[in-house]
Amino acid sequence: MKPSHIEHIGIAVKSLDEVIPYYEKLLGQKCYSIEEVADQKVRTAFFKVGDTKIELLEPTSPESTIAKWLENNPRGGVHHLAFCVDSVTDALADAEAMGIQLIDKAPRRGAEGLNIGFLHPKSTFGVLTELCEVPK
Amino acid sequence: MKPSHIEHIGIAVKSLDEVIPYYEKLLGQKCYSIEEVADQKVRTAFFKVGDTKIELLEPTSPESTIAKWLENNPRGGVHHLAFCVDSVTDALADAEAMGIQLIDKAPRRGAEGLNIGFLHPKSTFGVLTELCEVPK
Repeated sequence: MKPSHIEHIGIAVKSLDEVIPYYEKLLGQKCYSIEEVADQKVRTAFFKVGDTKIELLEPTSPESTIAKWLENNPRGGVHHLAFCVDSVTDALADAEAMGIQLIDKAPRRGAEGLNIGFLHPKSTFGVLTELCEVPK
Repeated sequence: MKPSHIEHIGIAVKSLDEVIPYYEKLLGQKCYSIEEVADQKVRTAFFKVGDTKIELLEPTSPESTIAKWLENNPRGGVHHLAFCVDSVTDALADAEAMGIQLIDKAPRRGAEGLNIGFLHPKSTFGVLTELCEVPK
């Protein structure tokens, strides 16, 4: 596979209300979108810096994987990196052929209507890695 | 401040020799540079995806901050995010005015000859944040 760019960086936060003002000042811009992704039990807030988005992730339920991650990382922090590819289906097949453990065997729908698939951090040296594709 | 793009994502690894082949396959490209930064007691390896670099960081001494970070995160993972700004001096002043705790009060020289300065993750919601500038 050959990703074109880093589509976004997912950052886990306890509270969007608390963290959005910080990123608005750091990045010199307003948050351009807040979206709830019910499937993943998160509320997301987006910024864009160059060709990469900053995606803040706030859990909406204690069952959210983000809530569990925050138990181990109470200050918050970088949760995952997402690379933009032409085809998530093909990229997941490539990753499996490389011996990488897949979290998603097939693409599913993520924030902003992207098709996404995750690779397990156990086989990516600790970096939870997402592959994503803008639907044609 | 208004960063133009994410200059790089710093990823801590135990062994460049082990992890470079993984990123070469994931990113469909060869590592373009390996550099030792004696000051930070690390060896770094670089890839470029869109306008952002992936900087792998291997400690060269148990005294390295990366070695200490790996004690708490033995699989490795995302260590820091670096934003490209026009002037690190000005951006550090802006950050201080925002109430952010600075690790570096003034710019210093980092990998690839950049001027850099770090913000403390205690005041950036858990994300170790670097500001960097291509010297004129």
